[in-house]
Amino acid sequence: MEECIFCKIVSGEVSSMKVYEDEYTLAFMDIAGDVDGHILVIPKEHCKNILDCNYHVLNDIMNTVKKIAEHLVENCRYDGVNILNASDESAGQSVPHFHIHIIPRRNNDGIDAWPVFEGANCEIEEIYRKIKMDEC
Amino acid sequence: MEECIFCKIVSGEVSSMKVYEDEYTLAFMDIAGDVDGHILVIPKEHCKNILDCNYHVLNDIMNTVKKIAEHLVENCRYDGVNILNASDESAGQSVPHFHIHIIPRRNNDGIDAWPVFEGANCEIEEIYRKIKMDEC
Repeated sequence: MEECIFCKIVSGEVSSMKVYEDEYTLAFMDIAGDVDGHILVIPKEHCKNILDCNYHVLNDIMNTVKKIAEHLVENCRYDGVNILNASDESAGQSVPHFHIHIIPRRNNDGIDAWPVFEGANCEIEEIYRKIKMDEC
Repeated sequence: MEECIFCKIVSGEVSSMKVYEDEYTLAFMDIAGDVDGHILVIPKEHCKNILDCNYHVLNDIMNTVKKIAEHLVENCRYDGVNILNASDESAGQSVPHFHIHIIPRRNNDGIDAWPVFEGANCEIEEIYRKIKMDEC
């Protein structure tokens, strides 16, 4: 997409600190400066998010997330990772090109990567009845 | 695993509100009560997290995440989803059976599903040099 910043990173029109690249995916440093080691993984082909992509793209991107997670633990002295994604503006998606965040973690690193949820407002059974799928 | 609470949910020894089930994966309501509509997706086969699972399991679980996300938007009047995962205790993983959180989202629902990160402590270039993979 012509105006997509992540497509420009894929094409090289915008530079990035590339952590990993293969035929279908690219990982690079998030420059927000919000937390140490913040990495973004994107598909090279433009799609908006998990709702918009096809299953091949989803599997390609997740396989890259796993490769990077293993690299961080095996080769870079990290102990684990947090994986985050916002799909749709309602969920806080800011760049409309599918991207998955990886936050490398070490024991007792002082990072809290879990959102501050303020408690449920509805009865869980009420929501459950609405979202239960036919397969159950 | 004998003592794993999620394996007990898979076997039926512990009951759950099942949202979706297929041969390899199960999705059910998270009963923490922290945010409306909180769903967990797990593989039926025990593995600890993204570092421990094989690629087939990862793709099975993510395909189920996508199916549920599409169902929430197409059939349940949600607009998007947040997807969260903690892999390893260092990342806040509490139950040692791979699980992915889905938070259904609506426009202006007042939920903030992004963690409160307190800012990077190190120079991004310094971390980048350490984590850059050979493929780049």
